[in-house]
Order: sequence, then C-alpha cells, then structure tokens
Amino acid sequence: MRYSQLFTKTKPREPKDELTSNAKLLTRAGFVNKLMAGVYSYLPLGLRVINKIETIVREEMNAIGGQEVFLPALHPSENWKQTKGWDNIDILFKLKSRTNREYALGQSHEEVITPLFKEYATSYKDLPVAIYQIQQKFRDELRAKSGLLRGREFRMKDMYSWHLDQADFNRFYQVAKLAYLKIYQRAGLQAKVTEASGGSFSEKISYEFMVLTPAGEDDILYCDQCDYCINTEIAKDLKEESECPRCQKAKLQKARASEVGNVFDLGQKYTHDFDLKLADKNGLLVYPIMGCYGIGISRLMGVIAEALHDDKGLVWPETIAPFQVHLVGLNLDNSDVKKQAEAIYQKLTQEHIEVLFDDRLEATPGAKFADADLIGLPYRLLVSAKTGDKVEYKKRQLKDVKITSLENFLKECCQ
Amino acid sequence: MRYSQLFTKTKPREPKDELTSNAKLLTRAGFVNKLMAGVYSYLPLGLRVINKIETIVREEMNAIGGQEVFLPALHPSENWKQTKGWDNIDILFKLKSRTNREYALGQSHEEVITPLFKEYATSYKDLPVAIYQIQQKFRDELRAKSGLLRGREFRMKDMYSWHLDQADFNRFYQVAKLAYLKIYQRAGLQAKVTEASGGSFSEKISYEFMVLTPAGEDDILYCDQCDYCINTEIAKDLKEESECPRCQKAKLQKARASEVGNVFDLGQKYTHDFDLKLADKNGLLVYPIMGCYGIGISRLMGVIAEALHDDKGLVWPETIAPFQVHLVGLNLDNSDVKKQAEAIYQKLTQEHIEVLFDDRLEATPGAKFADADLIGLPYRLLVSAKTGDKVEYKKRQLKDVKITSLENFLKECCQ
Repeated sequence: MRYSQLFTKTKPREPKDELTSNAKLLTRAGFVNKLMAGVYSYLPLGLRVINKIETIVREEMNAIGGQEVFLPALHPSENWKQTKGWDNIDILFKLKSRTNREYALGQSHEEVITPLFKEYATSYKDLPVAIYQIQQKFRDELRAKSGLLRGREFRMKDMYSWHLDQADFNRFYQVAKLAYLKIYQRAGLQAKVTEASGGSFSEKISYEFMVLTPAGEDDILYCDQCDYCINTEIAKDLKEESECPRCQKAKLQKARASEVGNVFDLGQKYTHDFDLKLADKNGLLVYPIMGCYGIGISRLMGVIAEALHDDKGLVWPETIAPFQVHLVGLNLDNSDVKKQAEAIYQKLTQEHIEVLFDDRLEATPGAKFADADLIGLPYRLLVSAKTGDKVEYKKRQLKDVKITSLENFLKECCQ
Repeated sequence: MRYSQLFTKTKPREPKDELTSNAKLLTRAGFVNKLMAGVYSYLPLGLRVINKIETIVREEMNAIGGQEVFLPALHPSENWKQTKGWDNIDILFKLKSRTNREYALGQSHEEVITPLFKEYATSYKDLPVAIYQIQQKFRDELRAKSGLLRGREFRMKDMYSWHLDQADFNRFYQVAKLAYLKIYQRAGLQAKVTEASGGSFSEKISYEFMVLTPAGEDDILYCDQCDYCINTEIAKDLKEESECPRCQKAKLQKARASEVGNVFDLGQKYTHDFDLKLADKNGLLVYPIMGCYGIGISRLMGVIAEALHDDKGLVWPETIAPFQVHLVGLNLDNSDVKKQAEAIYQKLTQEHIEVLFDDRLEATPGAKFADADLIGLPYRLLVSAKTGDKVEYKKRQLKDVKITSLENFLKECCQ
C-alpha cells in the first residue's frame, strides 16, 4: 500500500477527548476514528489489525473443534423475556419497529444460540459441541471512556459449548483455556487466568484472562512463583503481601490488569430456560451444561496498544502488525532513488511481504520517521540518496540501524 | 469437515413459514436458520458461502482501488438529522440509551462516512477516492417475506466515492460497473444493468444490477440484441414488444428480476449536508460529487439459490460452493471401505480441496444421496463396497456418473 494513496493521515496532535493511551495512539496513527463515545470506525490500518487478530482467534477455535456461525444482532424480545434478561440486564439496548414489534440488540448470544442448537440436537451423541462467531456486540454502557477497552459497539468472538455433564465441561474448559493462552501469546501478550465472580446469571465461578497494564480496569493479586491469580473483587481475606494460597512459596503481588477474555460456566440456566433436554445413554432426559467463552477482538487491539507502545508510538508484534515493513523513501525527487525505491516496493510485494510505502514527495524526513514510529510497524526500511544500492533497516523497538543489501534484509527479517 | 460432526442437519421437510425457494432450500439444507421474519442466522455451510462471496467482492473492490474500512452500526442521531434522514426515512430503526441519547441503526452509511472522509481530506489531491466496507445493515421493512432477498438485518458491501467533478464520477462509474459485472460472473450469475429511479434523496438516475429470476421483486424490459435494460418503474412509454430504443434491432422483452446491486449518483447532497468542500487546482472550494455502490452479500446468496437450483436442491457454482466435494461413504461398517474412505478424505484435505465427508454410519444410501443433492456441492464422490480401489463421481448438474481412479478425478475436476 502506498501511503500517498491511503485516505487516512496521521494526526499531529493527540485527540483532546480521549483519556487512554490506546485511544490516543490508535486515533493519532490513523487506525480508528471515534464516531461517539464507545463507538469507533476501523480505518484501513486498524481493520488490518482486526483481521490479523481474527485469523489467530479463528485458527485456535477451529483447532479445538469450534464450528463457526454468524448470528443476528437484532433479536426478538421474546428470547430475552424467556431468560428474564429483558428486565434484568441494564446494558441491553431495546428498540421497536414501526409496527411496535420489540427487539433487543445482542449484547451476548445465549438467547439466540440456545434455541438454535436445540433445533438440531437430538441426543447425547450430539454432545459435546462448541459453536462460535465473530460479530458486533451492543451494550448500553453508562461510561465508555476507555477507548477500545469498553465499547457501546464492539467486536467479539463468542463461543458456546454444551456438555452432557459437569465433568465434560471441566475437561473442555481446560482445552479452551490452553487455546486462549495460545491466542494471547500469538498476539504478543502474556495473559494470566484469574477466578472472578460469575456475574448476575450464575453463582458459579467464572474465569478471566488478564493482561497486566496500568490502563486496566481491574485489580488482581497474583503469585510470581506459580500461576495463582485472582481478581481482588472476590479475593476475600487475601491481599497484597498475603502468602500465595496455592504454592505457599511467595507473597501475592497486586497489579492493575485488563480483561482480554472470559469463560462462564453457565450451568443449566439457559438449557432450562429454553427447555433444551437431550436423552443420555440410558434414555434419560438431561439438561446439558453450557459454557460461554468470550474474547473482545477490538478490546484486544486496544489492550495490545496499551501494553505495547513507547513515547513515540505503537509497537506492533509481527503477528498483529497491519504491515510488516514501513518502506520510507527519501529524496524521491531524485529519479535514481525513486527508481530504486519503486523497485524495492515491487520486489517486497512480489515476495508477499506486506509493505506500507511512504512515497510522499512533500513530507520531510523527520515527518516520515515520526510517522513510522507512530504507526509502529516491525521494520522500518529506508531508501535515500545516501543508501546507494543498499538499504538501511531498523527494528521498531531497537535503536540501532543496519545497512545491508535487500537480500540480506529479507533473509534476516522476513522469514 | 465430517458431516457427522456438523451440528446442523438437513431437514426432511420444507419450512412451513417460508414462501420463496431461497428460504425453503437454504433452510432445509442447513445453510441458514430464521430467527424472525427478515432476520437469519448463518450456519456453518451458509457462512462459508457468505465468505466466498465476500472474497470475490473484496478482490474486485480492491482491484479498482477501493480501501476497506469497518464502520459502526450504531449512529448518533445528529448525523441523520443533518441529512433529514431522521424524519424522512421510514425504514430507519431508532433507539435510545438509558440516558436518553438517541441513536439510529445504520441502514446505509453516507451519514457516517461523509464526515469521516471530511476529517482526512485536505484538497483535490485526495480525489478521487473510493472507500468500502462489508457489514450488517438494519432496515425496518414492513414486509420481509422473501427469505434472504429482503432482510431487516442483512449483510452488505457498500462503497462510497468522491470526485472533483461529474465527468470523473462518470468515468469511475464505468470502472465500478465492470467490476460489478465481473463479481456476478464469478458468482455464476449473468446480470444486466438497468436504469432505475434514484430514490428519495436524489432526482438523478441510479443504476441497478438485475438477475433474471421468477422470484424477483422487479419487472424489467430488456433487449436481447444489445445491453439495453430498464426497470418498468421508470420505463414511461416503453412496454413489452416495444422496439428497443437503443439498437432498434429487436423488440423488448419483459421479465421478473431481482436486484443484486446498485449505484447511486448522490451528486452534492451529502457533501453539502456535511459541508465537505475541497480546494480545486485553482484554489476554489468545490463540493465533491459523491457516488454510492451497494451489493447485498446475503441477498446475493439468496439470488444464487433462486437462480441455481433444481427440484432436488441447490446447485452451487464452484466459486461459491461451501465445499467442492461431497464425499459419500457407503458400507462404512466394512472396515476396508471405511479405511479407503478415510484415506480419500485425508488425501483430499492434504491437497487443500474442500470436502464435506458424509461419514454417517446410520444413514441409508438414499438419504445420503438426497442430502448431497439438497446441499448441492459441485462434485459427489462415492466410495462403497462396490467401488473397490476406484471412486465414482458425479457432477451435481449432470445425470451420468463416472468410475475412475482418485488421481483421475483430481485431474479432471479439481484443478
């Protein structure tokens, strides 16, 4: 992609109405644009990041047997009345048609997917099953001041599973947990699994996946000698400096963290509500145990921006970056340099390397370098009157530059 | 994908509440599931079709320079009040937050993308530009009885372009028209371009892309000697048997047709409404001409189902089919046959051929063949106690079966 043709531009200043680093940086760098509080447009650079995250999530959900569907956002009120969510869930957006038909906007999809699965399930042989989608969610949040971390409209992967008994849910939870941890790792993050409260619809424990970041909205207590981690909301007698209740080898530390995923053990709540019962091996009808597994896709983009940036801008991991190489052309009014820069752009494109080519004539070298740092692609590749038949490259998170041949750059960096 | 693991099943009977072939067939075959009138869930088979259509649309939009974004569905009322759409568009869904903030659900996105583009555009040098998205639209339709052809929530590709003058819009319209015709051709359809009325927001002519099908909602007059085609709504004195006004070589024919795309010349309506003006080469401020280009992605899936089916079921073109091969295993209780069927499934998967493997033990051969016809994949490949070390294959739209080696099948059919 040529930067000169990209319709977005970086902005010289931070937006005045944003409080968090993710919103400030992603807006300045041209990844997102705020339509209103908690509602963002995804611009070409931002959409590429979203797509990269989705591909990772999709691969890991497919790998554990998840079947992808796409459910509506517009729901009949009846489904939400059946679970009492219509009256009890304060973030549920409600609307009416011209003919006074009542609808809800999906803030989660248990109310749609449970009767859907019921229509096809015939016996225990159809269990276990895991069905997921990646789709927009709508929540009437009172406060939405954290950029992509808390949206009124946001992108989410939500998976639902059904199991014949609790033991099978517990087994699958372990499978899903490993898939989730792999997703965060592939996205360049280290996540911890915490126990948290189950929310309004369940007395059961839920699990949250947390990334340590000062912009987080939760406090956690964690042990650095084992994987114990708990949300302070349900920590009861535990506090900072308490002995780790799991390994007893270290004192708990407290940190601000941001949720990047969750799992709810929904028990039989929804299978009861929608009368989804299946015959077990003995012909007895049972209400399956249901699980729900969420990852906020757009929120994850925000958390990556929070966790991975410096004072100059974003620092994308290679797996998530919208492009791998930021090709900066200087002195492009020199026809030899221009020819070489164009040839390198063509070569990289032919090699299927994703390149953002700053081919602007009017921008200063300083402006081009600042934009490269702000946008935060993994490799900055420089071609100028000084580089001759070599190229200069720099990794975004390092200070030193290297001068080498294009072939060497390709070998060293883009394998 | 193993059919035994797919959570959906074909249904033995047509749904009682559907009137159109697309809804009846896609529901029976397990591609979609109706949540309420005009609102469908896309099941694994259906989502794969949607993805195939989207890939084609995306490739053709990128090829003409379209830049992809993703815009919100939840819009502030202010944007719609600025264009008077808030009061004048009867299909606009409106809702309120808990704090009485008014929103609209996007039924189209001129109201969001025009101020967005304005924020980044600085002069005529930023023109022309074309920006598109693929996303859900919401419309408060009074009647939604045509399955995927008219939805209250549906999937759409909408592109918007801005041009310095009318001549440049006209030039780009021709480019976009060819891209649209290529999309329909790749999707297995022959589309005609008609002139139609411009809708409420414009006195200008709009262009519609129509596919001939009895399930269509429009009547068109067309010439089979040239490409003249017009919607009867604006045909004035022309009627069936009139002489073609373009080539004068044939009489016009009348047909029922379904719209699969449209282009609106929006003139300066939205650039005026949002005060988007840019300096031209002489420094004079001009309001750019805006165009809008829509393709209903889910509607296109419905039209393909209408246009390409027979009395046994769907007949997908190879480019759109959810899988290329329907591998039917019979006599799978015979361990040799089972072994061979599994080996073929593995081999095809390794060759990156998309296979739906009917590995059910309990289903009868008749049921398996009926399901293969209903689902409508391009190739049915049979392995049974009778096929030995060969396979039997049949093209969905042909009657004759062929017995050959797997290697030959791969050479003949899956290149």
